[in-house]
Amino acid sequence: MAKSWTENRQDDLERRYRDVRHLTQTLATPLSDADATVQSMPDASPAKWHLAHVTWFFETFVLRDHVEGYQPFDPRYAFLFNSYYEAEGPRHARAMRGMLTRPSLDEVLAWRTHVDAAMVRALPMLPQAVRALVTLGLHHEQQHQELMLTDLLHLFSCNPMEPALFAAPAAAPVALPGPLHWIEGREGLVEIGHGGQSDFAFDCEGPRHKALLHPHALAHRPVTNGEWIAFIEDGGYGEASHWLSDGWAWVQAQGVDAPAYWKQGEQGWTRFGLDGRQPVNPAAPVTHISLYEADAYASWAGARLPTEAEWESAAQNVAPISGTQLDDATAPRPHAASDDANLTQMFGDVWEWTGSAYRPYPGFRAAPGAVGEYNGKFMSGQFVLRGGSCATPRGHVRASYRNFFYPHQRWQFTGLRLAKDL
Amino acid sequence: MAKSWTENRQDDLERRYRDVRHLTQTLATPLSDADATVQSMPDASPAKWHLAHVTWFFETFVLRDHVEGYQPFDPRYAFLFNSYYEAEGPRHARAMRGMLTRPSLDEVLAWRTHVDAAMVRALPMLPQAVRALVTLGLHHEQQHQELMLTDLLHLFSCNPMEPALFAAPAAAPVALPGPLHWIEGREGLVEIGHGGQSDFAFDCEGPRHKALLHPHALAHRPVTNGEWIAFIEDGGYGEASHWLSDGWAWVQAQGVDAPAYWKQGEQGWTRFGLDGRQPVNPAAPVTHISLYEADAYASWAGARLPTEAEWESAAQNVAPISGTQLDDATAPRPHAASDDANLTQMFGDVWEWTGSAYRPYPGFRAAPGAVGEYNGKFMSGQFVLRGGSCATPRGHVRASYRNFFYPHQRWQFTGLRLAKDL
Amino acid sequence: MAKSWTENRQDDLERRYRDVRHLTQTLATPLSDADATVQSMPDASPAKWHLAHVTWFFETFVLRDHVEGYQPFDPRYAFLFNSYYEAEGPRHARAMRGMLTRPSLDEVLAWRTHVDAAMVRALPMLPQAVRALVTLGLHHEQQHQELMLTDLLHLFSCNPMEPALFAAPAAAPVALPGPLHWIEGREGLVEIGHGGQSDFAFDCEGPRHKALLHPHALAHRPVTNGEWIAFIEDGGYGEASHWLSDGWAWVQAQGVDAPAYWKQGEQGWTRFGLDGRQPVNPAAPVTHISLYEADAYASWAGARLPTEAEWESAAQNVAPISGTQLDDATAPRPHAASDDANLTQMFGDVWEWTGSAYRPYPGFRAAPGAVGEYNGKFMSGQFVLRGGSCATPRGHVRASYRNFFYPHQRWQFTGLRLAKDL
Amino acid sequence: MAKSWTENRQDDLERRYRDVRHLTQTLATPLSDADATVQSMPDASPAKWHLAHVTWFFETFVLRDHVEGYQPFDPRYAFLFNSYYEAEGPRHARAMRGMLTRPSLDEVLAWRTHVDAAMVRALPMLPQAVRALVTLGLHHEQQHQELMLTDLLHLFSCNPMEPALFAAPAAAPVALPGPLHWIEGREGLVEIGHGGQSDFAFDCEGPRHKALLHPHALAHRPVTNGEWIAFIEDGGYGEASHWLSDGWAWVQAQGVDAPAYWKQGEQGWTRFGLDGRQPVNPAAPVTHISLYEADAYASWAGARLPTEAEWESAAQNVAPISGTQLDDATAPRPHAASDDANLTQMFGDVWEWTGSAYRPYPGFRAAPGAVGEYNGKFMSGQFVLRGGSCATPRGHVRASYRNFFYPHQRWQFTGLRLAKDL
Repeated sequence: MAKSWTENRQDDLERRYRDVRHLTQTLATPLSDADATVQSMPDASPAKWHLAHVTWFFETFVLRDHVEGYQPFDPRYAFLFNSYYEAEGPRHARAMRGMLTRPSLDEVLAWRTHVDAAMVRALPMLPQAVRALVTLGLHHEQQHQELMLTDLLHLFSCNPMEPALFAAPAAAPVALPGPLHWIEGREGLVEIGHGGQSDFAFDCEGPRHKALLHPHALAHRPVTNGEWIAFIEDGGYGEASHWLSDGWAWVQAQGVDAPAYWKQGEQGWTRFGLDGRQPVNPAAPVTHISLYEADAYASWAGARLPTEAEWESAAQNVAPISGTQLDDATAPRPHAASDDANLTQMFGDVWEWTGSAYRPYPGFRAAPGAVGEYNGKFMSGQFVLRGGSCATPRGHVRASYRNFFYPHQRWQFTGLRLAKDL
Repeated sequence: MAKSWTENRQDDLERRYRDVRHLTQTLATPLSDADATVQSMPDASPAKWHLAHVTWFFETFVLRDHVEGYQPFDPRYAFLFNSYYEAEGPRHARAMRGMLTRPSLDEVLAWRTHVDAAMVRALPMLPQAVRALVTLGLHHEQQHQELMLTDLLHLFSCNPMEPALFAAPAAAPVALPGPLHWIEGREGLVEIGHGGQSDFAFDCEGPRHKALLHPHALAHRPVTNGEWIAFIEDGGYGEASHWLSDGWAWVQAQGVDAPAYWKQGEQGWTRFGLDGRQPVNPAAPVTHISLYEADAYASWAGARLPTEAEWESAAQNVAPISGTQLDDATAPRPHAASDDANLTQMFGDVWEWTGSAYRPYPGFRAAPGAVGEYNGKFMSGQFVLRGGSCATPRGHVRASYRNFFYPHQRWQFTGLRLAKDL
Repeated sequence: MAKSWTENRQDDLERRYRDVRHLTQTLATPLSDADATVQSMPDASPAKWHLAHVTWFFETFVLRDHVEGYQPFDPRYAFLFNSYYEAEGPRHARAMRGMLTRPSLDEVLAWRTHVDAAMVRALPMLPQAVRALVTLGLHHEQQHQELMLTDLLHLFSCNPMEPALFAAPAAAPVALPGPLHWIEGREGLVEIGHGGQSDFAFDCEGPRHKALLHPHALAHRPVTNGEWIAFIEDGGYGEASHWLSDGWAWVQAQGVDAPAYWKQGEQGWTRFGLDGRQPVNPAAPVTHISLYEADAYASWAGARLPTEAEWESAAQNVAPISGTQLDDATAPRPHAASDDANLTQMFGDVWEWTGSAYRPYPGFRAAPGAVGEYNGKFMSGQFVLRGGSCATPRGHVRASYRNFFYPHQRWQFTGLRLAKDL
Repeated sequence: MAKSWTENRQDDLERRYRDVRHLTQTLATPLSDADATVQSMPDASPAKWHLAHVTWFFETFVLRDHVEGYQPFDPRYAFLFNSYYEAEGPRHARAMRGMLTRPSLDEVLAWRTHVDAAMVRALPMLPQAVRALVTLGLHHEQQHQELMLTDLLHLFSCNPMEPALFAAPAAAPVALPGPLHWIEGREGLVEIGHGGQSDFAFDCEGPRHKALLHPHALAHRPVTNGEWIAFIEDGGYGEASHWLSDGWAWVQAQGVDAPAYWKQGEQGWTRFGLDGRQPVNPAAPVTHISLYEADAYASWAGARLPTEAEWESAAQNVAPISGTQLDDATAPRPHAASDDANLTQMFGDVWEWTGSAYRPYPGFRAAPGAVGEYNGKFMSGQFVLRGGSCATPRGHVRASYRNFFYPHQRWQFTGLRLAKDL
């Protein structure tokens, strides 16, 4: 006889718990203790910190709060591995995360094992509200899987030896895509945002609400590296009129003249990745660009960035598990688009900068308590990105998903898709 | 016989030119050469620079470009007093504006006289397109009138002697207002933005477009100093959960615990103004607060900031020349609201922070050329403020007017009006 | 009948008081209120501040402390114009001195008049110990005369119009000096330092003590601009091996490639001075160089800097009122050396960097009390300079005089004289 | 039959090579890969970097330059592990040393083994000039042994868990020393500096030269922790008059109120060390103080710091291998002095700040070439310390040895001995 829906769901959560936790573990496999410890900039965190912090989430909000008799693995870890939950008390300063040579990577992995054992024991007994916390914790861990990879990429890029964390795949022939074409979007009132009835979503994705779209079109695919090289060669980084004022100041202060990790040599442009230094693939979407760069490119191209409502409305018809996303422990790389009449690469490959500031939706309210600090407090100064990237764990992203970064940040797999008014 | 419409309009522009230029001159009357020269922070400019820069606008975009045979007063001034028009070539660095002890205040005033004479001669002959530039220049000058006052306020606040630029009015009895009440706003599709057919507006105010309002209400008046003191006394500046993450970092790094220019003494709170140090008036709207503070207050009060569409929709029924605005050379001060069933103090008194990031409207395109640099390039990282303040020259502001500052800035007369979802 | 010695001395002090105070006033004559108010960098002070601070010294340590019934001109000035005398209580922050647009230059000059009147009345009645304080105050004021000029030079150099404070003298024909030759110095035990019995000296110049000189020689004149250009043309600023490690870091961080105020144009090198921008005179001593530059030049030239004992021992035979020093309100400029068999330009023209760190002499003790803060507390991180410059008031400097600056500072008229081991 | 002197010397160098290299290896034994990789501040270097850099010295200046056919272990290491030898070409930026998670600690240790094997093979064949380079390399390595320990101490102090690298010894009873007494020093001409005929010395220790001592006395022992606590309790950190001006600015900017690594708890003062957090031993010399603190203490105590000539003259009669120095892989700790009529603890225990700026001796010339960059270029802004510390490898230090640090630095085992004028 078939299991009831509830039992199924229970199994689902356990399997999902094992899968997500296992992928994290797998990503850590090629890391040395040192790789896992160093923090290469204040924006990034050590891999060990990611491995620990996501574990702290389960130990604190599930095991400590809801499982009687649970003994924390080491009571000092709560201070070390809290991130920004003010309500959870004082914590180790963010910029000092790289000082924690102890506990070692092995000890953190042992902590993970300890927590996993307790979680797997506890899961079948947890009430629904706590199971929701577990689900939240798993999505939280998936976010950190992506950050762990991009933070490692930044760290390895600071090493003149440019080590490769993963083996590079065999080079494939490059098929340059045809020119981009425009796909008209919906006009008038649409519904966006997560409804919250079923399935998981972060608080900032809701409430579902009406939004008004003005006549517009989206490019059928993201901007490619080849197109970006044309922007460079046309002097795009040196012409103030393309740039936001803050962006122009940033370009000049930092001496920016290409996407992050790019270098120009005798053989042309190369880029550094978790598979080491490789030629730039002109057919693949450009990545590791800031909002400032994305906006300047759009201005140069006579276009603009999409709003998040335009993007989401268009994405509602696309399967979110499509595209190049993170499936296993290999080096993430955006792939070339196939030419197609329809929208392509909406999900995966590169996070797409939108022109929308990250602000609350109509009717948004932060949830009370420590977990409620989750997203609302970041709603100033950042821009929304949509669609996930090649480093986003498959199954994590959806049409309503709102990622956000400051306009100068570019160590994620960030790219852009053009939009225009009709 | 009555003058034709065109002649009237011509007279209007000339009268308006004289009025605006004269008010600027009047504001400068109490200034010493030194007062007019010093720059107290990179965000502010010296009064002399304001007096000169607005004059540079007319000399460059009107006299140089459109009046044959015009001789610039001093060809070196163009380099000194350009602000941020990249297309107009290199310019003196913003943070170094306070180094210009020469030309003297008197020389800058003589330049003004020179330009005014040429402008008054030229005005009747200018074609319509150039008259539009003159109008733009006058609105530009009105913006700088307000900045000149707020920059002087900041400068004088850095002097331990706390000099008063203007005499303080006699103290009036304080009548505390009753509690605020809520006024329901329009719901559904509304039209906002400037239509651009007639009357002046800055480019960023348009195009006029439909916007969607969700059910909401606005407070009938801004938050008062008395209410702000309650926030302080309730520990509002010390409780992380009220604050945006960037705001909390700012409060801690800067040691902020009250609005700018406030001090607590034995007689209670005082504030510094262009009329010197005076007691805080609990009945008047709070001012000199950052977006971070406005947002924290709203969060503490269980409310939120209005969006700019909500604000503009409500303001469309209010006369923009109402409220406390700048009429002559006296110290600007917000006045206490009278209790009223309707929206009060929508215009004047204090700039109201909205929760909207300063971004382009649907269909917005920057105008080409130097004047086109005007607004579009500032569209990242800033928030919109609405309604003008006690330091805004009367006649300058309107329902569609979009002011913008970074969320930490508070040297303008900035306050807030609460909003809530219904 | 001849006056007694004491009466003479009294007259001397009064005449000296009038002379010094009058020169200060004269130096201020060409200044506008704005010129006198602005602070161009934290190291420099506004001219108004100099004018006020030296007056504060007399008002505080003489009139307040020793003249009964003296009424301070304005009791708030003590806070504003104390410099670094911790024992005198809190004071206006150094980097904020340029914010004081009030009191005006005229008010400060009126304060000077008020204090001068009281001083001239009081002088005949003051006991010897207080007369010593007056003498200290006059030397203190002479120091500030020089700083006022060099601070104004820095300020005016920040103005793209490069105004000249004083008229430039007519250009004179340049007679290039012959090559420098070496003058052997004393060897063995010598006496240096100020004996303190008669005449004025700052505390750090004593006590007089024996010093041991090793076999050495000094160049008969300072290094010239012409020689410095040879250093530049030989790539001196680009070759790490010439430089102290801190100096090399400074050169690279600041992009230094010539003395301060130099610019290279089609007509060759020019320099900015209080007489505006003028051609570099190859025959005159180089000036506005840091210790780092002086040391790198010496290293490039196969020589070294003199120690202060070597310098002082040689200078004991030279008249300290010789050389180009400040006599009246004209633009200070070092003059070309005449070729001479003996040491030339030991006094005046340029301060000569020595290789000696500014540290206490054997037996040095700081005097107790506020005046005792005078010099001892600056004895870390700075190098000694000797001999005075073209901006040093004649009569102020002597063989034992120790000036001191940090090794990167170069806004004084600083140059160098080579030394070598024998 | 006895070996000839030359054979003996040969054996000596080989034995010394093995001993020094072995101690380094032993010190690294308790380190994890992460411990060895992280850089806790720009002043410090990762342990792995120390292990590699000293090896680079032998590989570059001995094996590459003087051993035919030597194959470098990895040609990329030269770029990574050069420190500041400009003549050896570009190098990895100092502040980025902590980014090098690869090569791993194991790989660096393998490099050491590779180089050691080649060195041991080569040593018997090397000509005398190259053997001198080997000796230089061994002293260089001993310097880095000490730095490795103090850098690790700083790193571990940044970890809130405060891990102990080495086991703490059993607590011993504290016997407070009696009051310090004064030992009169030599007066008149003395000889100091290294003669350079035999035995090793760094270039900056010579040439040997006459120095003039004025009447003075030295304290018979360093200042103790107990005495330092009296300074703290007397408000020493809060009274400006004790401090150098730069020191007072440092104390206030950094909030310094005790030696580094000290913390005050309910049980009194504790300090962090490589043996973890332990009670402060009032009988032991104070350590981890800056020159500013040492100078302020001396001023408070009515004394002064010794000059380096006074110190060296007194130390010439003391055995440099005496005192607490580094013998093996245990946590360095200064020991309590025994009461004694003579000078005690001149060597070992704590580096003693002198009042002498680090400047060249009369007749000093930097050696040409890359090795010649060794010391001369650091001769600005730093003060000399003498005598070695508990972390200095025994056999490394001598009477003429000149250590040097900037006046604010205090992560070494730095203390002070008082001096006074007689």
